[in-house]
Amino acid sequence: MDFSSKLLENAVNEVSRLPGIGKRTALRLVLHLLKQPKEHTSYLSNALLSLRNEVKTCEKCHNISDTVLCDICQNPKRNPEIVCVVEDIRDVMAIESTAQFQGLYHVLGGKISPIEGIGPQNLQIDSLVDKVSKGEIKELIFALSSTMEGDTTNFYIFKQIEKFGITTSTIARGIAVGDELEYADEVTLGRSILNRIPFENSLRN
Amino acid sequence: MDFSSKLLENAVNEVSRLPGIGKRTALRLVLHLLKQPKEHTSYLSNALLSLRNEVKTCEKCHNISDTVLCDICQNPKRNPEIVCVVEDIRDVMAIESTAQFQGLYHVLGGKISPIEGIGPQNLQIDSLVDKVSKGEIKELIFALSSTMEGDTTNFYIFKQIEKFGITTSTIARGIAVGDELEYADEVTLGRSILNRIPFENSLRN
Repeated sequence: MDFSSKLLENAVNEVSRLPGIGKRTALRLVLHLLKQPKEHTSYLSNALLSLRNEVKTCEKCHNISDTVLCDICQNPKRNPEIVCVVEDIRDVMAIESTAQFQGLYHVLGGKISPIEGIGPQNLQIDSLVDKVSKGEIKELIFALSSTMEGDTTNFYIFKQIEKFGITTSTIARGIAVGDELEYADEVTLGRSILNRIPFENSLRN
Repeated sequence: MDFSSKLLENAVNEVSRLPGIGKRTALRLVLHLLKQPKEHTSYLSNALLSLRNEVKTCEKCHNISDTVLCDICQNPKRNPEIVCVVEDIRDVMAIESTAQFQGLYHVLGGKISPIEGIGPQNLQIDSLVDKVSKGEIKELIFALSSTMEGDTTNFYIFKQIEKFGITTSTIARGIAVGDELEYADEVTLGRSILNRIPFENSLRN
C-alpha cells in the first residue's frame, strides 16, 4: 500500500499489528476516526494507555483487577475452599454470568503450548501448587478448554498436586442445551453417554 | 458483559465504538495489548493521536496529506487538466497502484446519501465546480462506485458542470480480467457488450 501521508501510514501500521486486523481493515478503522470528532480519538487513546499502564492483576487469583485483591477474592460470601482453574478473564466472565459458582478462581494466564513457546514457568502454576500445598483448597475444578493444550495443562497441574490428596474435578462435557443429537460430534456424544447423570439431577436447573 | 476492572471496561467500550468491532472482538484486542510490552500500546495511541491532530487535507484535491499540497498535486509531471473524481483516499490509492493515470484527483469525501444524512453541502462539490468554472480542467473522469449513491453523486455533479462544456467520462464497467462470463451479473455483462472496444485496443496492456 502506498500512502499519501506518513501519519496515516504510521497509524495504519500500528492498528494492523493487532491480531486479526489486516491493512485494509486498519485503514477503514483509521479513516473512520478521521471522520469523527477529535475527542473520539483521544478517548480511545487514553482508555488504552491508562488500561495498559495502571491495570493490576489480583494478588490471589491473578485475574485483571483495578485493586490489589479483585472483587471476587474480596467477597466474604464466596467459598475460598473451592477454586476453579481457568485460562483468562474471559472464562471468569463466562462462568460468573451463569451465577452457578460460588467459589474462587485461579487464572493461569494461558495454556501450556510448546508451539507458541508457552511452558509451565510462563503460567501461574507455581502459585496454584503453593496454595494447594498450604491446605487452603479442598476442591479444584479444572475449567480449561478441552483442546490438546488444555488437557496437557490440566494433566501437568494434576500431577503436581496429586500428592496433596484434594478433590479434583473437571467441568462436564456433553451436548449443549438445545442442541440436536444428530449434529453432535462423536467424542462429545460418547462422553455425554459415559458421564450420564441421574435424571432427577437434570431437573434442578 | 460484567468486567472485573473499570479500566478494562472503559477500554473495551472505546474500542467497540469502531465500525465492525463488537464487544467480544474489542475484549480480544485489548487483552492482546495487555500481553504485549507497554510500548506497543503507547506507539498505537500516539500514532492515532498524532494522525487525528496533525493530518491535513490537500488544499487542491482534498486528499489526506501531511503537507498543504499533496505529493500528487505537487508533481509537475502530472497533467492538471485531467481530473479524476473519487470518493476517498482508498480510491486514490487503488487507481495509483495501476500506474495508468497521470492526471490529478478530486476527493469528494463521500457520496450523496440521504439515508446517512450526507447532502452535496457535506462533500467537496462546490470546490470542484469552482475549478471547472475557472477553466482549469479539460476532462473530468467520474470514478465513484456504481451504486445508487455513486450514480446520484455523478449525476448531481454532471448537472452542475454541464454548462461549462468540458469533456466528462466515467471509468469502464465490464467483466473483470480473469473472470468467467457465466458468473457475471447481467447488468455488468450487458454494459460490457454495449460499450465494447476495438480489439486492437485490448492488446495494449
